[in-house]
Amino acid sequence: MFRPQIKVLDCTIRDGGLINNHNFDDRLVKEVYKALSAAGVDYMEIGYKNSRSLFSPEKYGKWKFCDDEDIRRVIEGVKSHTKISVMVDVGRVDMKDIKPKKDSPVDMIRVASYVKDIDKAIAMVNEFAGKGYETTINIMAISRALDNELTEALAQVEKECAAPVIYIVDSFGSLYQETTEFLVKKFKNILKSKEIGMHAHNNQQLGFSNTIEAIIHDANYMDATVYGIGRGAGNCPLELLLGFLKNPKFDIRPLLDLISNEFIPLREKIEWGYIIPYAITGMLDEHPNSAISLRNSDKKENYREFYESFMPSETE
Amino acid sequence: MFRPQIKVLDCTIRDGGLINNHNFDDRLVKEVYKALSAAGVDYMEIGYKNSRSLFSPEKYGKWKFCDDEDIRRVIEGVKSHTKISVMVDVGRVDMKDIKPKKDSPVDMIRVASYVKDIDKAIAMVNEFAGKGYETTINIMAISRALDNELTEALAQVEKECAAPVIYIVDSFGSLYQETTEFLVKKFKNILKSKEIGMHAHNNQQLGFSNTIEAIIHDANYMDATVYGIGRGAGNCPLELLLGFLKNPKFDIRPLLDLISNEFIPLREKIEWGYIIPYAITGMLDEHPNSAISLRNSDKKENYREFYESFMPSETE
Repeated sequence: MFRPQIKVLDCTIRDGGLINNHNFDDRLVKEVYKALSAAGVDYMEIGYKNSRSLFSPEKYGKWKFCDDEDIRRVIEGVKSHTKISVMVDVGRVDMKDIKPKKDSPVDMIRVASYVKDIDKAIAMVNEFAGKGYETTINIMAISRALDNELTEALAQVEKECAAPVIYIVDSFGSLYQETTEFLVKKFKNILKSKEIGMHAHNNQQLGFSNTIEAIIHDANYMDATVYGIGRGAGNCPLELLLGFLKNPKFDIRPLLDLISNEFIPLREKIEWGYIIPYAITGMLDEHPNSAISLRNSDKKENYREFYESFMPSETE
Repeated sequence: MFRPQIKVLDCTIRDGGLINNHNFDDRLVKEVYKALSAAGVDYMEIGYKNSRSLFSPEKYGKWKFCDDEDIRRVIEGVKSHTKISVMVDVGRVDMKDIKPKKDSPVDMIRVASYVKDIDKAIAMVNEFAGKGYETTINIMAISRALDNELTEALAQVEKECAAPVIYIVDSFGSLYQETTEFLVKKFKNILKSKEIGMHAHNNQQLGFSNTIEAIIHDANYMDATVYGIGRGAGNCPLELLLGFLKNPKFDIRPLLDLISNEFIPLREKIEWGYIIPYAITGMLDEHPNSAISLRNSDKKENYREFYESFMPSETE
């Protein structure tokens, strides 16, 4: 019943860090690592590898930079087969910060890229692969990609890119299962030598179902987060994904403890989940930034005015 | 792009009433009716038509009984094309309480039935139809129905039942899109003369996607509730469904106001939505009653113990 090729990547700390400027304390990060390890999750993405020349360490927590020694401190002493992943954005990393894999606790580096930046992303991936890392490209804002440009980018990736896994990233949480099916089939059709990944946002409560849809159409790399944490509406909930997958290596129970003990209290302090302004940006295929601003204003529950702000004014 | 045959039925007050013993005040019920009418929703299910000899009016609010005069009081003076529906359970209604349609504000009576009670449900439906009402049968706990018994029941419904619409009810919130596809196709294959409806619960955040899946496979009657309210995990959120449907008769904005003004404050008083014990009963295909009990106990966040309570003990 299960597909052994399926890999689950947890990005709780990385995507959740977008809510709190990557300011999770070591204790929580270690608890997450312990629970993921006990649950049999394949990868834990612990943060971004950003350049300190672009982002201030006064403003951002350590998981925006993911120094090797910070990673080592939280993973040491834990019995684990869970690999460590970090994400980099095109143009935001000092390539010289990336040591050879043999000198780093990091196993995988994922490059987040828009279609337009695919050349840069390929060059970065190839350099990371040359240093010994596992790699992926995560193509963001896929719902806004023009079909012909996406086709061209994927053909180039297939031809030139060392990464064995290419992700569909539904940044705006606007995909439905039919669009997910279309995209997975398109990716598989062009990327003959690659595995396909799915990173779904949950604006319309479709994060989990779009992930299932990707699995149905033979995507094998699945992103999820504990209790669905993530910027705005959050992500596919990891506990639901493990409940769905039949792979005997997974055990949901350490995640249930982690949610009880850590994420129920955390949700009282920072906001994510099914919140109407994020549902609105999802259904309108808009970036969630406007909804994040609304939620930080005194109009946070003024949904109609927010919705109407997207209605077209006179245009040619 | 849109399918004119699609009808949306809101069961906010009926299914939401399962949380609070049907004790919504007239003001809220009227606000819901006004918003649904302005949004262009086809039906509003306002409650159950239960026998007062079985349920005490001291314990339950008026929407457990749905007297005609109570309905008239909330709908009067509102410009509306939204029809009124009530639900009855097999064996819980005094058939003599049901007046001829011409004397009642009710347009539709839906009979909720398990597969095993289908004979009784058909007899009730035929009597309601004879009195002039629109009718449906809603087949509950569909995930537990044995396939051969379901086949037989549907064949009998097709042959003997006056109801033109037969609903799939995912009582436990355990269906995935593949199971939904299987069931809708099965229903359509046997019920050649009927429309198919979908009533999805949201235990695994799949209420909306299972509803979309039913639409994809040509189901035309869709249940939903405002802000997903309903017992336990709740239902497919109406605002997401209207955001998905392209039928020009629908307007999401009155619902956004209703959520801002009424359902955000209501959610502070009564609980529904994505809550781990309901996710657990959904993934294990169990009735939510055990999760409801847990949430009313001092172990409400003790998810692991709750999960393990379903693990098999020694059985032959």
